[in-house]
Amino acid sequence: MNKIEHLGIAVKDIDKSNEVFSRLLGEPAYKEEVVDSEGVKTSFFKLGENKIELLAGISGDSAIEKYLSKNREGIHHVAIAVDDIYAEIDRLKKEGFQFINEIPKKGADNKLIVFIHPKSANGLLVELCQDAG
Amino acid sequence: MNKIEHLGIAVKDIDKSNEVFSRLLGEPAYKEEVVDSEGVKTSFFKLGENKIELLAGISGDSAIEKYLSKNREGIHHVAIAVDDIYAEIDRLKKEGFQFINEIPKKGADNKLIVFIHPKSANGLLVELCQDAG
Repeated sequence: MNKIEHLGIAVKDIDKSNEVFSRLLGEPAYKEEVVDSEGVKTSFFKLGENKIELLAGISGDSAIEKYLSKNREGIHHVAIAVDDIYAEIDRLKKEGFQFINEIPKKGADNKLIVFIHPKSANGLLVELCQDAG
Repeated sequence: MNKIEHLGIAVKDIDKSNEVFSRLLGEPAYKEEVVDSEGVKTSFFKLGENKIELLAGISGDSAIEKYLSKNREGIHHVAIAVDDIYAEIDRLKKEGFQFINEIPKKGADNKLIVFIHPKSANGLLVELCQDAG
């Protein structure tokens, strides 16, 4: 558990939100990326060694669009950087945490990612991520 | 805008949540602090250079108890570390951001803090914080 790698923020209109976060953080997104497998468009902002990731749904039935049908725009997940995602999954399973997917998959920003189920993490959707190399 | 200083997480039962976050992050809270002026009990966990702050209301009418009467447990605010809080307030006011309090006040963990209103920050409650020295 090295640091908060990024905060994932669910937004409706990514162009409008890019403008808001550019003004807030004082510089524009350094990268935009479409993740077809997740049905999302993302943009990334630097905040020192941390990042803000904006996520907007583009498929009509992405996890982000489902989330926004029940919740207001806001923080969707917290991603924690780890060195060895498989070792952390083992450790956390022994601690009783449940995972949405137990096998790491390729996410945005060239990461291997897994999600811990919010019901075992105090309501928080926690992503573990490791550089895919 | 230096980094995510901490994520503030609203919880109902801080002892129970301390236990969950200890297992998640692999080490216990390094500090607990009651902030009487805000009616909250807090605990702090290290996550590399970032922190997780758990907040539970203890006054019956704290901001956290009001928040939890309308929302589930989860991320209440994002605190961003800045070097010069007064300069950032000026910059952000010129950018059109609205503040809940414009004059920095003393928060937990020996910080000077201000909050940007969520309605001007895409629904996010953003705290700016500077070491009080």
